[in-house]
Amino acid sequence: MELGPHSRPAEPGRCVSGSPSAGSVFAASLLSAAGATPGSRPAAVAAVLPAGGCGERMGVRTPKQFCRVLERPLISYTLQALERVCWIKDIVVAVTGENMEAMRNIIQRYGHKRISLAEAGATRHRSIFNGLKALAEDQPDCKLTKPEVVIIHDAVRPFVEEDILLRVVMAAKEHGAAGAIRPLVSTVISPAADGCLDHALDRAKHRASEMPQAFLFDVIYEAYQQCSDYDLEFGTECLQLALKYCHTKAKLVEGPPELWKVTYKQDLYAAESLIKEKISQDICVVVNTKDEESAGHLLKEVLKNELNCATITSTALDHSGGDLQNSLTDQCYSFICMTVLSSDFQETQKFLTALEESSLPLLYPVVVVLVHCLDFTLVPPTQKLESLMWIRDLAKEVKKRNVLLSGLLINYSQDEQKLQESLWQGASIIAALVKERSPALAGQLLVA
Amino acid sequence: MELGPHSRPAEPGRCVSGSPSAGSVFAASLLSAAGATPGSRPAAVAAVLPAGGCGERMGVRTPKQFCRVLERPLISYTLQALERVCWIKDIVVAVTGENMEAMRNIIQRYGHKRISLAEAGATRHRSIFNGLKALAEDQPDCKLTKPEVVIIHDAVRPFVEEDILLRVVMAAKEHGAAGAIRPLVSTVISPAADGCLDHALDRAKHRASEMPQAFLFDVIYEAYQQCSDYDLEFGTECLQLALKYCHTKAKLVEGPPELWKVTYKQDLYAAESLIKEKISQDICVVVNTKDEESAGHLLKEVLKNELNCATITSTALDHSGGDLQNSLTDQCYSFICMTVLSSDFQETQKFLTALEESSLPLLYPVVVVLVHCLDFTLVPPTQKLESLMWIRDLAKEVKKRNVLLSGLLINYSQDEQKLQESLWQGASIIAALVKERSPALAGQLLVA
Repeated sequence: MELGPHSRPAEPGRCVSGSPSAGSVFAASLLSAAGATPGSRPAAVAAVLPAGGCGERMGVRTPKQFCRVLERPLISYTLQALERVCWIKDIVVAVTGENMEAMRNIIQRYGHKRISLAEAGATRHRSIFNGLKALAEDQPDCKLTKPEVVIIHDAVRPFVEEDILLRVVMAAKEHGAAGAIRPLVSTVISPAADGCLDHALDRAKHRASEMPQAFLFDVIYEAYQQCSDYDLEFGTECLQLALKYCHTKAKLVEGPPELWKVTYKQDLYAAESLIKEKISQDICVVVNTKDEESAGHLLKEVLKNELNCATITSTALDHSGGDLQNSLTDQCYSFICMTVLSSDFQETQKFLTALEESSLPLLYPVVVVLVHCLDFTLVPPTQKLESLMWIRDLAKEVKKRNVLLSGLLINYSQDEQKLQESLWQGASIIAALVKERSPALAGQLLVA
Repeated sequence: MELGPHSRPAEPGRCVSGSPSAGSVFAASLLSAAGATPGSRPAAVAAVLPAGGCGERMGVRTPKQFCRVLERPLISYTLQALERVCWIKDIVVAVTGENMEAMRNIIQRYGHKRISLAEAGATRHRSIFNGLKALAEDQPDCKLTKPEVVIIHDAVRPFVEEDILLRVVMAAKEHGAAGAIRPLVSTVISPAADGCLDHALDRAKHRASEMPQAFLFDVIYEAYQQCSDYDLEFGTECLQLALKYCHTKAKLVEGPPELWKVTYKQDLYAAESLIKEKISQDICVVVNTKDEESAGHLLKEVLKNELNCATITSTALDHSGGDLQNSLTDQCYSFICMTVLSSDFQETQKFLTALEESSLPLLYPVVVVLVHCLDFTLVPPTQKLESLMWIRDLAKEVKKRNVLLSGLLINYSQDEQKLQESLWQGASIIAALVKERSPALAGQLLVA
C-alpha cells in the first residue's frame, strides 16, 4: 500500500460545498442570485463567534467552550462546522486575554483555517461588538475585508449545519437580519417581585431565539455603534438591537433541535454522545484476499444489523490506487481489518502509518480492530493470542497519536451455528469499540 | 458467604428518608409543623404523573417516557425517584389505553410500589385532570385517599430529588400552589404574523417553568373542574390554571439544572450519561486474604485517581455477617473481586448467585470485574487466560440476569515501575467497564 503525495486527506477545514454537490450549487446560485440585480457578485460572508463566557452554569472551572469532548475542546468542533462551509470567508473569535494563548494553540493544533482573534469584552454584546470591529474597515489595523453579511454564532453550539447557515444568510440578505428559532420546551413565566407567579406566557405565541443569526453587516454594526451602555451590559438579543436601533425586523427561521446550546454538564454529555454517534456512522472493512473478502462480507452483514444506521464499505489494503485512499479522506474513523490466515505485523504497521500520517486522528480518535478469523477447534484461542501479543505494544505506540487499536478473534467454525454466534458476538464487540472509543481498551485482545 | 433471610436488599421503592437522616428529620418536622396549629397531622401527599405524550419531538416512534435507558424505560427511573420519597403516599400515572398493559408490565417487572393507573386524556391537562379524579373522593370507585397536597411531575424528568419535592410541597402548603423554575437558557421572542420578530422578552425578567409543581389538592382540583375546554385543549401551565380559576398565586421555587425535561434525542443521551455517572459513584472492592487486601489497597488508590469522585469501599467475600451484605443493599452496582493466588470458580459463583438474588441487577446492569494479580515473568498471561476460560461461560449465564462479568489480569511485578504501570492501566480499564457498562464486553478477559 502506497499513499502518494496527493493522497493526503483534506484539511479539517476543507469545504463541504467545494465538491459540486446539489447543496453547493444551491448555495452558490442563491448567494449570487439573491442580490436580484443581474451581474451582482456573490455575498461576502464572515462569522463572529463570541467565546468570552466563563461557563459558570456548567459547574466546572473550565469555560464550557474549552471543555473537552473526546479530548478536543468544544470550540474546535464549532470552528470545524463553520470552516467546512467554504463561502464563509473569515471567522472572528472573541476570546478573553487570558484565553488568547490557549485559543491560538487550539487553532494550530487542530489545523483551523480562516480564523482571526479579537479580544472579548466583559459581556456577550461587547464581545460581539469587538468581533464586528475586527471586520469593519473603519478601524485602524483592520486586516480583514468588510463582509456584506455577518453570521453571529455561539462557540457552544457545535452542531450547526451548512443548511441552516445558508437559510439565515439568505434571509438576512433579504430582510437585513435573521435568526434561528425553536419551539419552547418549557412554558415561560413572569415572576412578581414577591417570588410568586405573575403570569404565564402562551407557549404557542413565543419561541426560543437560538443561533446562528445573520445580519447585513452595516445594519448590525450601526446597531452596536448606536446602542446604549445598558444594552451592551444587560442585553442578550442581537435581533432586538437591529430592531431597536435600525428598525430592521429580523426574519425568524425554524432551526433543527441540534442547534441547542451546551450550557450544563448534561449538555456536554449529550454533545459527546452525538459526536460519537456521528463519527460511528461510517465503518470501513479492510480485506486483502478472497478468503478475507468472504469473511468480511459475513461480518458486514451482521454489523449492519448491530449498527443499524451505519454505512459499511470495504476496501483492499494492498492496492495502492483508489479505495483505501478514499476511505482515508472520506471522514471514516473506524476500520475493521480482516485477517483469515496469517497475521502480518508489517502490513498492519504500514496501514497504521498511513493512518497516522493522514489528518484523521487529528480530529477524532480512530478505531482500528484487527479481526483474526480462525477455527477454535483447530487453533485454541489462547494459542493464537500468544502470537498476537505484538498488538499490545503496537497499540501503545499508536495510541499516542489518537489511534485506538485492538485485536478480535472470531471463531471461524465449520459449524454454521457456532460461526453465526461468534460473528454476532464479534459484531457487537466491534459496535461497542466503535461507539465508545474508549482509550482504556486499546491494546486489548478480545475473543468472540 | 451466606446471606440470611434478612439480607435481601431493599426494594427499589424503599424510602430514602426512612432512615433517620438529617433530611428526613427536616422533612418530617416541616411536613407536620407547616400546618402551624399545634397537633396538626403531617400533610398527606400524593403525586400525579401525566405520561400520555406521544414523543413526536424525539423523532422516534416510541413515546419518550418509554424509551429505554440502560435497557429500562425512562418512566421507571422517574417512578423510582418518586417512590424513594416515603412521604409520597400514592403515585397516579396517567397513560393512554394502548400503553396501559406496557405500563403494568413495567410496574411489575421493576417492582414499583404505591402506583395507580389512570387513563390519559388527549392533552396533558386532560391527563392530569384524570389523574386528579383518581384521587378525589367524589368520584365513583375511588380507591385512593384524597391527599392534602398533590405533586404534579413529568414522566420524562427522572432526576427529581427529595429536596426539591419537599420544597415545592412546603411552598404549596403555604401558598396553595408552587412550582420549580429555572433561568432561561435562550432569549424568548414573540414572532409577528409575517414570521418576523415582533419583540424580544427581557431574559432577566422571565423564567422557565419546570416540574415538579405542587398544589393544595382542593385548589388544583377546583381549577380543573372550572376550567374551559380551551384551557384543557391548549393550555400548558397548571400554575396558570390555579391563578386564573382559584386566584392562587403560585410560589416559584428555584430548582437544579437536572430537572430538565427529556425532549429530544440528545436529552436521552444526556440522561443515559447522568444515570451511568450516578451508578458509577460507588465501587466495592472485594478482598478475602491478607495478600488480596494489600493488592486491593494498591488498586483502590489508583482507582481513586482514575474515577476522581467515586467512593471506593472494600469488603470481604467469606464473612457472612456485615460488610458484603451492606454493599449489596447499599445501591452499589460495581464490584471488583481481587484474587492473588488461586482463582476460585466456586467462590465467584457464590458471590454472583448472591448478587443475582438481590434486587440490584433488577434496576441497573451490575459490573463485576474479577481481578487476577500475577507476576507475568513467572506466569505468562496467556497461560493464565487458559485457566480462566470458565469466566467466559459464567459471564454468558449471568448476563441474562443483567450482571456484566469480566476478567482482568494485572502484572503483579516485583519491579515497582512495572507494577505501577499495570495498576494504572488496570484502573483505567476498570473505570471504562464501570462507566460504560457495555454488555458486549461481558465475558472478555482483559490484560493490564
